Amino acid sequence: MSSTVLYMSMSLDGFISGRDVSPEQGLGEGGERLHDWLFDGEVAGANLLVRDEFMATGAILAGKGTFEPAGGWNGDHHDGVPIHILSRHPKPEWAANWPEVHYSNDVESAAQAAKEAAGDKNVLVHGASTAQRMLAAGLLDELEIHLIPVLLGEGVRLFEHLGAAQRELERVRVLEGDAGVTHLRYRVLR
Amino acid sequence: MSSTVLYMSMSLDGFISGRDVSPEQGLGEGGERLHDWLFDGEVAGANLLVRDEFMATGAILAGKGTFEPAGGWNGDHHDGVPIHILSRHPKPEWAANWPEVHYSNDVESAAQAAKEAAGDKNVLVHGASTAQRMLAAGLLDELEIHLIPVLLGEGVRLFEHLGAAQRELERVRVLEGDAGVTHLRYRVLR
Repeated sequence: MSSTVLYMSMSLDGFISGRDVSPEQGLGEGGERLHDWLFDGEVAGANLLVRDEFMATGAILAGKGTFEPAGGWNGDHHDGVPIHILSRHPKPEWAANWPEVHYSNDVESAAQAAKEAAGDKNVLVHGASTAQRMLAAGLLDELEIHLIPVLLGEGVRLFEHLGAAQRELERVRVLEGDAGVTHLRYRVLR
Repeated sequence: MSSTVLYMSMSLDGFISGRDVSPEQGLGEGGERLHDWLFDGEVAGANLLVRDEFMATGAILAGKGTFEPAGGWNGDHHDGVPIHILSRHPKPEWAANWPEVHYSNDVESAAQAAKEAAGDKNVLVHGASTAQRMLAAGLLDELEIHLIPVLLGEGVRLFEHLGAAQRELERVRVLEGDAGVTHLRYRVLR
């Protein structure tokens, strides 16, 4: 059975990008710090294991705010797997020739389509607002947080706008990666 | 050398108490969930190790908002060690007979006094606003976060009002405790 798994790098103080996010600075001020573990030098050990995992997923479910500043990953995040994008807007012209990219604003049907496309692989969920919508709709199965040893002070928080509902998690794995990155995996209990 | 160490239970979404904190409900709605690991059943393994550590500190530095709703710990948090409270108000009447309790609003001199009192033991720092003031003043040496496997959605955040300064941390220990509690220890780099 395919699971929906959120993969996000987060500072210890809860941010997934710095302040002043803009088209020119998609991760905000200092936000690229959160991704050093993937792009700054060799990726090995637990960091490699986790990267290999999310690069072996069978579909992507992300928000427009993640997809578009990243240039739509040139239409292929990895291995040509289907990419489902949550957006109130239609699929843009520049993505028209990428048949594996699907736009929709219905989180339920998008999650369903991504899971079907993924078959027995997992669905990589990415982006703060997508995570929040998936959690609120009870559609997120697991979270894999790459906890980065830094405080950013300001920026975009991963967990926000969730309302005062207490959601229990089950810790399923803790991995200590290089560069002080701790990979925390939780199952969302329902 | 004495170090100042913040010990705090925090939900994965960054809260140290629920919403609607009041004198009758010091931890807010659902906030006591964050302390189940200390008070709900036997404390053993990594949870016991960490509890033993903070109960072996040589002084306390906390805020009025932590101290007063807790009834001032009856004047003795553990072993009669000195208790330094940050507050704009003077020491209240009901605490007048507790000579080890000191009120001050000067974070620098309070931290200095607590460190001197602790001798070669560490100082237990507690409370969100105290943590924020200590971090902002460059006076916090280490953080020990007891990460609780729950999302509270709303409440009081541990990390807030810190401004957009990037503070690097060094991960020094990760311990997996019972009940899904992960103890994360970081040194604040300067």
